[in-house]
Amino acid sequence: MKSVSLAEKLAKITTHWDPHVVADYNDNDVMVVKFAGEFPFHDHSDTDDFFLVIEGEIIIDVETASGIESHTLRAGELFVVPKGIRHRPRAEHEAKVLLIEPKGTPNTGDAVTASKKPRL
Amino acid sequence: MKSVSLAEKLAKITTHWDPHVVADYNDNDVMVVKFAGEFPFHDHSDTDDFFLVIEGEIIIDVETASGIESHTLRAGELFVVPKGIRHRPRAEHEAKVLLIEPKGTPNTGDAVTASKKPRL
Repeated sequence: MKSVSLAEKLAKITTHWDPHVVADYNDNDVMVVKFAGEFPFHDHSDTDDFFLVIEGEIIIDVETASGIESHTLRAGELFVVPKGIRHRPRAEHEAKVLLIEPKGTPNTGDAVTASKKPRL
Repeated sequence: MKSVSLAEKLAKITTHWDPHVVADYNDNDVMVVKFAGEFPFHDHSDTDDFFLVIEGEIIIDVETASGIESHTLRAGELFVVPKGIRHRPRAEHEAKVLLIEPKGTPNTGDAVTASKKPRL
């Protein structure tokens, strides 16, 4: 048991869209990640997707019946994408984010990205 | 679906040790809470306990085989107390914290505090 500094962990990450596990909560990975640019639209059929912005600003585009809704999130703001909802995270400038997902969840909803996340 | 500002939600809370739900993640409550003073030692036999400090400083005392370990956490630091581990959160000055727990988890491990948490 030890405390985890998100800033310290994030300082070790040099890639984008590459979540790293920093803690375990029940059967979930608690991860930090740097966003920059655009991730593909995807959904997770079995799980909600938790985002909390640590630094910077991100946009989460969400597909709805009436079109794409864009949600802008700044540091200290969180967003949960409900399971099954197609969404696309993006960031104009590099942003730092805390993610929580059940272990084994693919990044993109595609089995190819379901491999175990690296741990910091 | 909408973004949640932790600071806005916390500004509405006037009590201590009184978690308020701000979002749902799978079957978990995502909550904000203000700590001040000392909470009783307790454990949760069925779940880990997730703490992320938003503002201020908290201490989590944890019972181990060799005595009490005290973990100090500042803003941007998180800590997960594994299930079954007795712990006591405290704060010398008011601190603001994000908590995640499965819905229905008692605050103290005691059924008396298992009632549904208020929602902001």
